[in-house]
Amino acid sequence: MVGELGERKIIEIILGCLDQMPNMPIPFGDDVSAVNIGNGRLAVIKTDMLVGKTDVPPGMNLWQAARKAVVMNISDLAAKGVKPYALLASIGIPRTFTEKDIHQIGEGLNAGAREYNTYVLGGDTNEASDLVISCTAFGIADKHLLMKRDGAKPNDLLAVTGFFGKSPSGLQILLEALKAPVDIKEELVNAVLMPKALLKEGLALAQTQAVTASIDSSDGLAWSLHEISRASNVGFVIDNLPVAHETEEFAGVTGLNPVELSLYGGEEYELVLAIKPKRWEKAKEATEQIGTPLIRIGQITKEKTSLLRMKEKTIRVEPKGWEHLRTTWTHRTCDPP
Amino acid sequence: MVGELGERKIIEIILGCLDQMPNMPIPFGDDVSAVNIGNGRLAVIKTDMLVGKTDVPPGMNLWQAARKAVVMNISDLAAKGVKPYALLASIGIPRTFTEKDIHQIGEGLNAGAREYNTYVLGGDTNEASDLVISCTAFGIADKHLLMKRDGAKPNDLLAVTGFFGKSPSGLQILLEALKAPVDIKEELVNAVLMPKALLKEGLALAQTQAVTASIDSSDGLAWSLHEISRASNVGFVIDNLPVAHETEEFAGVTGLNPVELSLYGGEEYELVLAIKPKRWEKAKEATEQIGTPLIRIGQITKEKTSLLRMKEKTIRVEPKGWEHLRTTWTHRTCDPP
Repeated sequence: MVGELGERKIIEIILGCLDQMPNMPIPFGDDVSAVNIGNGRLAVIKTDMLVGKTDVPPGMNLWQAARKAVVMNISDLAAKGVKPYALLASIGIPRTFTEKDIHQIGEGLNAGAREYNTYVLGGDTNEASDLVISCTAFGIADKHLLMKRDGAKPNDLLAVTGFFGKSPSGLQILLEALKAPVDIKEELVNAVLMPKALLKEGLALAQTQAVTASIDSSDGLAWSLHEISRASNVGFVIDNLPVAHETEEFAGVTGLNPVELSLYGGEEYELVLAIKPKRWEKAKEATEQIGTPLIRIGQITKEKTSLLRMKEKTIRVEPKGWEHLRTTWTHRTCDPP
Repeated sequence: MVGELGERKIIEIILGCLDQMPNMPIPFGDDVSAVNIGNGRLAVIKTDMLVGKTDVPPGMNLWQAARKAVVMNISDLAAKGVKPYALLASIGIPRTFTEKDIHQIGEGLNAGAREYNTYVLGGDTNEASDLVISCTAFGIADKHLLMKRDGAKPNDLLAVTGFFGKSPSGLQILLEALKAPVDIKEELVNAVLMPKALLKEGLALAQTQAVTASIDSSDGLAWSLHEISRASNVGFVIDNLPVAHETEEFAGVTGLNPVELSLYGGEEYELVLAIKPKRWEKAKEATEQIGTPLIRIGQITKEKTSLLRMKEKTIRVEPKGWEHLRTTWTHRTCDPP
């Protein structure tokens, strides 16, 4: 049964069935797909499906769900340093939805698109048992600027664009009704309901040519690092885990582990990057000019280990997301890489 | 409730929410969307979702369903005269599916892609309540060759690439267990299970520059003609309804109306075309070289009527698909155009 296979195994089976296009500019399994269109340019396409049951937590309205369906896709283009030119949305709508619900979906799609200076050009509607919004994002990229997953080299610096654990904490509030201090509750919940794609940051970083591997953290920091390692055939060590202070505070009052919240969460859209040491300053400058920090969290290693060094001890970073946040296998498998 | 709104109204609501991209090369509501990429070229994208409940009749296996999800999208590119370069597939999978089911889906996607000389480059998998396969097709087109819906002019000839009513007859066999003569049953059922996109025909027709409007007939001949009329602001008259002899035969034994089977069916992927009279021969030659007839069925009219002239009488062609073939609103609304 699919419930036991896990997403990675399912993807493996499907990829195993597919003939591979000759001269694919981006290999299977990266965040986006691409086609050469001449003059060193790539047409970049990405599709990612939002399903009500697994991707829309209680407390998220349809406007937010539709906007999120857009943001999920833009975030993947952002991580590759590709500007989105246009979006499509294929929508499955349950029979019980009202006209007002449809309006919310339409407005949410448009809001997500306009926020990133792009447009929804078309799509398709269908009846479905559950809400399904499958967005496709399209962009054009210079082939030599596109940031893939597979270029990380030993000694490259590992960096992220922000602090972690806020969305996983917010999900705990929404799903498990955990209590949070008033002054941080909104911030934590908003991290879930109103995710942001770091598009400006991705575009600016691509221009620096400092980045050797890039991915967003929608499946959690640990998972993203394992994806870069797997694709680049390297390991990593974290010595500066970027835990948000709100995560620390929430963990303090709930007794949850802030390290786990930050590593094994998900629904976070920070960029996770491997950066050439010599171009570190250039990369840092690029994001800081936009007002976003570039936080060095560790290093790429030749040995295929995946370690988190903390003051008191060193632990292994598992290749997993935070399964118990959801009842489904989506994004949450823990097969070894 | 959505069940009462109908697909057209839902699409209208959503389009009403969307800001329009300046200088859109193809208007909202055509079969595909596009972006200018310079040098008179367009990046063409299309997404269409297959939902198990509404698009997979009994008797269609998962391999066929996945292949159909590809063909649906390729057919829309074919109708525009655009060669597909690449496909993506975003898949929602019920928990009850087995590993073998996933294999069938992967093989079906690949078979559909390879049949049209293209590849599936990537996608996304999710858990969902019902099978959902949302494919995206991507192509590049010369702007001046792309066949839109909105260019039909009075006196243009109406033409199709084949005879109608086979899929609707096949659906009756699969859904209602109607009996068909042995010698045509397989042909009728296969029309449903193994639809074909007329890609070669679409590409050849685009080169002739004879076509002023084009659409596939996935929602039925009547619906397609109404779509061309609506987009081009014209009317039409059919004087040579292209009823397949198998449809005649099936109608004969079942008592169904062959005219209705041919007009108000759906799941047919013939091209429906408006053609400049002066270039008729050129267009006909183009498809016949591929072994496909080009059948003149009528004419575009200035008056916004929609008539079918038969020997005994003239009737109005309604803007509808054959609702009672399905219990859902998908593709089957009958709002006036």
